Amino acid sequence: MPEFSPGLEGVVAAETAVSEVDGANGRLIYRGGYLIEDLAPVATYEETAYLLWHGTLPNKTELDALRRQMAAARRLNDAARGSISAIDPATDPMDTLRTVVSAQGASKTLSQPTLDQAIADTAVFPTIVAAAHRRAQGLDLIDPRDDLGHAANLLWMMEGKEASPERVHWLDTYLVLLADHGLNASTFTARVIASTGSDLTSCIVGAIGALKGPAHGGATFAARTMLDKIGSIDNVEAWLQQAHEEHRRFAGFGHRVYRTYDPRAKILREMAKTATPDLHRLAAHTEEVALKILHEAHPERPNATNVDFWAAVVLTGVGIPKELFTCMFATSRVSGWSAHVLESLADLRIIRPASVWKGPEPGTKPLPVAQR
Amino acid sequence: MPEFSPGLEGVVAAETAVSEVDGANGRLIYRGGYLIEDLAPVATYEETAYLLWHGTLPNKTELDALRRQMAAARRLNDAARGSISAIDPATDPMDTLRTVVSAQGASKTLSQPTLDQAIADTAVFPTIVAAAHRRAQGLDLIDPRDDLGHAANLLWMMEGKEASPERVHWLDTYLVLLADHGLNASTFTARVIASTGSDLTSCIVGAIGALKGPAHGGATFAARTMLDKIGSIDNVEAWLQQAHEEHRRFAGFGHRVYRTYDPRAKILREMAKTATPDLHRLAAHTEEVALKILHEAHPERPNATNVDFWAAVVLTGVGIPKELFTCMFATSRVSGWSAHVLESLADLRIIRPASVWKGPEPGTKPLPVAQR
Repeated sequence: MPEFSPGLEGVVAAETAVSEVDGANGRLIYRGGYLIEDLAPVATYEETAYLLWHGTLPNKTELDALRRQMAAARRLNDAARGSISAIDPATDPMDTLRTVVSAQGASKTLSQPTLDQAIADTAVFPTIVAAAHRRAQGLDLIDPRDDLGHAANLLWMMEGKEASPERVHWLDTYLVLLADHGLNASTFTARVIASTGSDLTSCIVGAIGALKGPAHGGATFAARTMLDKIGSIDNVEAWLQQAHEEHRRFAGFGHRVYRTYDPRAKILREMAKTATPDLHRLAAHTEEVALKILHEAHPERPNATNVDFWAAVVLTGVGIPKELFTCMFATSRVSGWSAHVLESLADLRIIRPASVWKGPEPGTKPLPVAQR
Repeated sequence: MPEFSPGLEGVVAAETAVSEVDGANGRLIYRGGYLIEDLAPVATYEETAYLLWHGTLPNKTELDALRRQMAAARRLNDAARGSISAIDPATDPMDTLRTVVSAQGASKTLSQPTLDQAIADTAVFPTIVAAAHRRAQGLDLIDPRDDLGHAANLLWMMEGKEASPERVHWLDTYLVLLADHGLNASTFTARVIASTGSDLTSCIVGAIGALKGPAHGGATFAARTMLDKIGSIDNVEAWLQQAHEEHRRFAGFGHRVYRTYDPRAKILREMAKTATPDLHRLAAHTEEVALKILHEAHPERPNATNVDFWAAVVLTGVGIPKELFTCMFATSRVSGWSAHVLESLADLRIIRPASVWKGPEPGTKPLPVAQR
């Protein structure tokens, strides 16, 4: 029996051509061999999703076809509408997303994951997230607009007015940056579910649940909460020093894979200067001090800033309430989840690891008395 | 980088004291060191769930308290009722279960998994499964009864009349036998989701999705479908021989872990003699011929009968329609899923394996043209 590797750290669980996190060199490679820093300035989320699904970037005709297909899939079906109406508007929007995606994808017969389903599931996320947001505010839901792109539709359905091109661009870039990231826990969840021969919605619903955790997608919310608590540049040193002394983790720092600066964090940090100059200054100083404290405490550890830290700043600049940060992450990553599931179909083998028994050997305890 | 082990076969992903599948010796050990063949004849499902959660069997007072707590948790809340009403009655009941469990467990704030939640989630499964069944039949839903146990309640809510003690006993034994089974794919899914710090409902909803696959919980349905197609004892040889020649798999045979006869299959096979004598005869002959064909084709492989094969026979004897077989499996396994999640909290570490890059190196493809 091989050794137990907690968290499966370093254990190879898949071969993939969807994305590669080259942590040693601080590189994130998307399908087709694109470095994230080359792709992000020129590709929209729709183009990126197409790339993750197909392996090539779309030409104009292909992109138009994808946009039309997504537009047609943005509306909620009866099951999804009924589910969302029945949920308490104060519910955690990730729970609403998990439930309504499940309802929207409920079907009469088991079907193998397909590209059309991947497109449909990806298209409907903004509709659900915006609906959860509107209901929490006590506002009527707003239908998607076929003439708007993915990021623009999300803001439109949340706010009921067209967002500025700058805000759409910042959000769209965020969605491009977060769309895939190797075998992260939610993507791995989707692949484990797919490995049993289950359907795409089951994979995506499971992945939403995994992303929700504070050690995963929930980290962006935590980073913003930390910045809120710090409050002002004058307070940075004192706040972080006290947190460090109380052994509280700095939200948005440290990653299992990256050993150098996360290339996505770099792009978001630069974008934050324009998107939200004041918060950028607070965050930049917070980052500087946090890295200094962490380096002094653990000089041997790479304490690179996470994507979550700067994502929290940029999403704030876009005007997204922090309660929706994890939903924004899900709205981006669903294209990567589905691309991984579709890739895994080529050589489906159930993912069923072994465990080490830590309980007593049989026969050492008295048998139960029948109580029926 | 270590080697890629497809399906994580033989890779240790957890230490556990919840259950152990000793495949080499054909033993299944439940928490506390109980062999399944010792436990199943004397313990009810409620006692078994208590054992998986606590590590000891309950005394009379503890069991009564658990039964009261489960009775109180069997009713659907508003979100769950609304979700189920909105779903097309012809929906795959596993999709309904996935959606309604998600709705029932939707909450305003993220909470760590607790034993109380495990009990509540386990208690409500029969209510949802029975509701899906009644709606598919165009019948009114039936409320649970506080004076009935778990298995009896399931049949009560499905049928609207009290089931015979024999049928309740067969179903209850089935539920005991399927309650846990090491790091199977759905349990592993639950543990991966838990590893991010997510909530129990997210873990269980993900596990439902994994169980749905035909390579996992869907196998019981497939086994029954195969028996239906064979139809009569006279047809066994011809049908299996043809299926074998056409390289179709025999549903209900072969398992990654067991190298000898699955102890659960043994118990179910014996029970099937009484529960459904005619189908038992057909199944026993089918098993004999299938094992012979498989052994002749692959003498080196252990081709033991799966639990799914005999579970299909016993569930038929109980009178469960085959469309609900996977839901029955889920109704049992939810106690195991939640026990694993609770156990994993003691040393939570995100499950994030590595992958091997199969795509091109960056810089080999032309950059996209901006199309915005």
